[in-house]
Amino acid sequence: MKTYLECFPCFLRQALHLAKICGLDEAKQKKIIDHTGSLFAQIDLNATSPEIAYFIHHELKKFLGKDDPYEQTKEKNVAEALKLLPVLNSHLLSAANPLHTATRLAIAGNVIDLGAQESFDLTKEIESVLTADFAIDDFTSFAADLAKAKNIVYLGDNTGEGVFDKLFIEQINKPLIYATREKPIINDITIKWAKKIGLHTVCTVVSSGAKTPGTVPKQCSREFQQTLTNADIIISKGQGNYEALSDTSLPIYFFLKAKCQVMADHIGVPLGSYLLIKNQKSNL
Amino acid sequence: MKTYLECFPCFLRQALHLAKICGLDEAKQKKIIDHTGSLFAQIDLNATSPEIAYFIHHELKKFLGKDDPYEQTKEKNVAEALKLLPVLNSHLLSAANPLHTATRLAIAGNVIDLGAQESFDLTKEIESVLTADFAIDDFTSFAADLAKAKNIVYLGDNTGEGVFDKLFIEQINKPLIYATREKPIINDITIKWAKKIGLHTVCTVVSSGAKTPGTVPKQCSREFQQTLTNADIIISKGQGNYEALSDTSLPIYFFLKAKCQVMADHIGVPLGSYLLIKNQKSNL
Repeated sequence: MKTYLECFPCFLRQALHLAKICGLDEAKQKKIIDHTGSLFAQIDLNATSPEIAYFIHHELKKFLGKDDPYEQTKEKNVAEALKLLPVLNSHLLSAANPLHTATRLAIAGNVIDLGAQESFDLTKEIESVLTADFAIDDFTSFAADLAKAKNIVYLGDNTGEGVFDKLFIEQINKPLIYATREKPIINDITIKWAKKIGLHTVCTVVSSGAKTPGTVPKQCSREFQQTLTNADIIISKGQGNYEALSDTSLPIYFFLKAKCQVMADHIGVPLGSYLLIKNQKSNL
Repeated sequence: MKTYLECFPCFLRQALHLAKICGLDEAKQKKIIDHTGSLFAQIDLNATSPEIAYFIHHELKKFLGKDDPYEQTKEKNVAEALKLLPVLNSHLLSAANPLHTATRLAIAGNVIDLGAQESFDLTKEIESVLTADFAIDDFTSFAADLAKAKNIVYLGDNTGEGVFDKLFIEQINKPLIYATREKPIINDITIKWAKKIGLHTVCTVVSSGAKTPGTVPKQCSREFQQTLTNADIIISKGQGNYEALSDTSLPIYFFLKAKCQVMADHIGVPLGSYLLIKNQKSNL
């Protein structure tokens, strides 16, 4: 997906949110705004949005002298998601089609995102996703392709979402490779957090090698690029992975919620839409 | 009103909108983003939001080599407002309390704003404002103070809104000074446009002397500062004038719609609220 200039005000908003999360006073928050603004001229519009977000957050982390400013946020998000496990499990137990329900719950988990927004209501999201009309819903095709797939790759997104991902993967009950980011970036999932959540007990957890908040193929390790090439089916969570991969011909199903106007307009759906999209450029 | 750092992403959004209005291609739009970002470090947070908006727009106008990039937008906005005159007049003719209806219509006109947002639906706004529950509604007090006022000052805001202002001023039917901006800034009203709309036929039109998109007292001419001091009642339209004047003790009634989250949060009302607020710091 191309990078839109409309994302720049959002990059600035993210920088301010980061400054607040770090507990900076207003004068120092202003310095973060100033520094972020001064970085814009170094940004090439040919870069993908996750690459630009990485560049800005990387520079800000240097500026702040903090390697993982979202550590506490991730902890909080995971705790919040774990609290919902009884509700999630009861939905799955009573489901007419557990894979369908698990898929929808996995998409609900995608709301735990600090890139595109700053606040969310997870409980409300769960109720909403189960009954919503999806703006694009390729579930039938997804279920058929999943049933015959041997090499399944799952691209994680945000950390708290990992709790929902685990339930979904348990439901699939097939060998699967779950990929995380290489290093902490915003509130995205890393190997450390995937293990804390216990994802390694239900599938193979690997790093994609990408430090960007989105699995940009050229930012991935050679080994993971090969993993993507060998996949029969790739489940891609969230906006960042969509931005990184929507122009490829990989056999992807995108699970996401259109959380910002730029994304909604790009896909051509209303803001807030739930989406399960088969990559039309693939041979799926 | 203090300046919030949350306004900076919005300043950037405004700059991008300006670049688009000027018909720049994407590479040049990016230059506007870069230039705007580079200006942030020069901005003092003690300045009011209208002063900051002025600084940014002034710098961008120099950068673009255009003195009034919103000229065509203003023309379009006025034409659109004029088309609604029959509807507005019919509402006034059938009104149980014409001053009340004219007040509400004047507030509806405030939606023609390119500072806080980029699009609006004026017809929908008119229907909505007439029946809405205002989040703060000091109309009764306003009507009583207006009835006894001798020196009435009206602070215009956006250009198209002037059409609504004129109807309201006709309804008041008392001598009144209508103040515009000193020079073109965003889509705000100037003397030239006030005359085109015919405001000078129903009241005395003057420039406040302020070039900022909000009547910041210290940016006004000495003469207009005196006009403000002598006023028995000041009718202040829109967010920019609110930002400029809400900390003064002037005898103001603010007519506005809370069009952005920062403003809504500051006042403590839901986003999109209509407001008629008596300045509590005044002796009104």
